[in-house]
Amino acid sequence: MALASERHVVRELFVTAEAARREADLVAVARNAGATVIHVADRVAVALGETEHPQGVLAVVGIEPVALADVLVAKPRLVAVLVAAADPGNAGAIVRTADAAGADAVVLTAGSVDPYGGKCVRASAGSIFNLPVVTGVDVGAVLAELHQCGILALAATMDGGSIERIGAELRRPTAWLFGNEAHGLPADVTAAADRRVRVPIFGRAESLNVAAAAAVCLYESARVQRHESPEAGSGH
Amino acid sequence: MALASERHVVRELFVTAEAARREADLVAVARNAGATVIHVADRVAVALGETEHPQGVLAVVGIEPVALADVLVAKPRLVAVLVAAADPGNAGAIVRTADAAGADAVVLTAGSVDPYGGKCVRASAGSIFNLPVVTGVDVGAVLAELHQCGILALAATMDGGSIERIGAELRRPTAWLFGNEAHGLPADVTAAADRRVRVPIFGRAESLNVAAAAAVCLYESARVQRHESPEAGSGH
Repeated sequence: MALASERHVVRELFVTAEAARREADLVAVARNAGATVIHVADRVAVALGETEHPQGVLAVVGIEPVALADVLVAKPRLVAVLVAAADPGNAGAIVRTADAAGADAVVLTAGSVDPYGGKCVRASAGSIFNLPVVTGVDVGAVLAELHQCGILALAATMDGGSIERIGAELRRPTAWLFGNEAHGLPADVTAAADRRVRVPIFGRAESLNVAAAAAVCLYESARVQRHESPEAGSGH
Repeated sequence: MALASERHVVRELFVTAEAARREADLVAVARNAGATVIHVADRVAVALGETEHPQGVLAVVGIEPVALADVLVAKPRLVAVLVAAADPGNAGAIVRTADAAGADAVVLTAGSVDPYGGKCVRASAGSIFNLPVVTGVDVGAVLAELHQCGILALAATMDGGSIERIGAELRRPTAWLFGNEAHGLPADVTAAADRRVRVPIFGRAESLNVAAAAAVCLYESARVQRHESPEAGSGH
């Protein structure tokens, strides 16, 4: 559990008696960091936790909003943009994968699910607190700002060029745009992107789940940027 | 909707009045293929469908079990093996990704979820009917048979060698072994595999979701087998 960073801080920590014993170090750290520690009965933890298997520790976390401009000024090399993401499980899974792939930020455009909702936070397995998450921005404004910063905007679509053919262009700072399960990306978004890119379907499946497609796209970018770029020095 | 194949056949088709009009062609094909077509009220379709947004068409499908030996005799090049898979959503997502990546079969070892349960079938988006799915086999027997057939058995683990370093070995016929979310792969399984392989974590995430890891692994195999193998002729 992330107890504090630039962007978030634990204000209150609710713990059951059993969890307070098991996680004594964590409780001490939270208290020293300024959190109010509140002891609760097991059934209170169950009610608060929105989950069938509560861990006995719940935190109320204050989140500082992140502006797109703050993300872009840091010259990101890899960004995931979820356009009107509707499924919190997929959104959280993509945040987790983006974090794992070393992305610098995730953007959820206006009309997307709340990434701090319980289902999305759980699907992110904590990654929602690991990297800047920008919310509520207009997708047109995102595309304009990406263009202005020289960041390659790739629209993940069913009918674009195969990701295997982009090659060296993936070395550039890149933002991947992912649509929602039901509607994909709006036509004006794919038209405004620099390229439409598809993950090829080799079998009989009609499409990939957006979270699976995002895993392939983000890891392909990571592979190319970290191993084939002349600027990439050390590797990992 | 797949109406029939070698391995499954639609025995009964339940349709609402609205769906019978909308899907008249499908109903005719099913009837000609020997299915019994049963008209039901909307609320019956809702009750049968286990889903909030039923499509008004439900099929009872007979599935022929597939034996591992039948899969192996066809000389598969890419197989996904789910070891004690516990989450039907992840299992269905991996079946869908395996189908998309052109895998020849999916194996769920004994103790895994039922891949024909509603949640798994929905997460597979129909892919469960697109490729052979072997169930209920002992993981030790699977490893022995893979070895005997000369199929490279790769255990997806957190502590193996990076997938980016395997290189040309991925040209070989390959079976990927994926563990369950909570416990990963059992130690005896990783020990019996030819190699342990990890998807590298570049950011701060502790791990990848198994379905995301499977997407990266299966597509990396597809990329290498289809583009870099001397036997792979035509490409796509």
